[in-house]
Amino acid sequence: MPRTSAISGFQELNAVIHERTRLAIMSYLIPARKATFSELKEGLHLTDGNLNLHMKVLEKHGYVDVRKEFVRRRPRTTYEITSRGRREFASYVARLESILQPVKSR
Amino acid sequence: MPRTSAISGFQELNAVIHERTRLAIMSYLIPARKATFSELKEGLHLTDGNLNLHMKVLEKHGYVDVRKEFVRRRPRTTYEITSRGRREFASYVARLESILQPVKSR
Repeated sequence: MPRTSAISGFQELNAVIHERTRLAIMSYLIPARKATFSELKEGLHLTDGNLNLHMKVLEKHGYVDVRKEFVRRRPRTTYEITSRGRREFASYVARLESILQPVKSR
Repeated sequence: MPRTSAISGFQELNAVIHERTRLAIMSYLIPARKATFSELKEGLHLTDGNLNLHMKVLEKHGYVDVRKEFVRRRPRTTYEITSRGRREFASYVARLESILQPVKSR
């Protein structure tokens, strides 16, 4: 019998973060701390619509703060990771690792 | 600017394996090599319908082999991880780690 305790807790793996595109966005934002809409779009090869959708979800959960301003009369949107976002991400990674640890050592 | 090469490859993260329930099933099967339907169901706290659905997806992709037999006149379904499943899982984990590595070292 394999060790199932960590694995059976998979339903607590944060689904907001686990979704592939949001996992990439969060992985980008954590070290960068902040990034503009354009940076994220180009860095992650996303469409406007797709990125917008996922940023709204992250914002709604309080994982990012958004700032909209005008720079040389052009709108610029900047996202900053929140401490809540950072905390939830760390806890997501720890849980993911506890699921994968027994598998990786094989 | 953060290192984006690994992160921007997130769309190649195997979506069949990334889905939370299937990630748990695969993580269970890799060290166990094989498990019955009941073991998986109880070990991972899943319903019959849900487990059945996900096993069909894994079978369709050739990640598990299924064997149905009668044991004391009762049907028993056993799943075994295939070499393809093992290979795809290893490659999924490696890709996931390359996304998370720069983040974890912060």
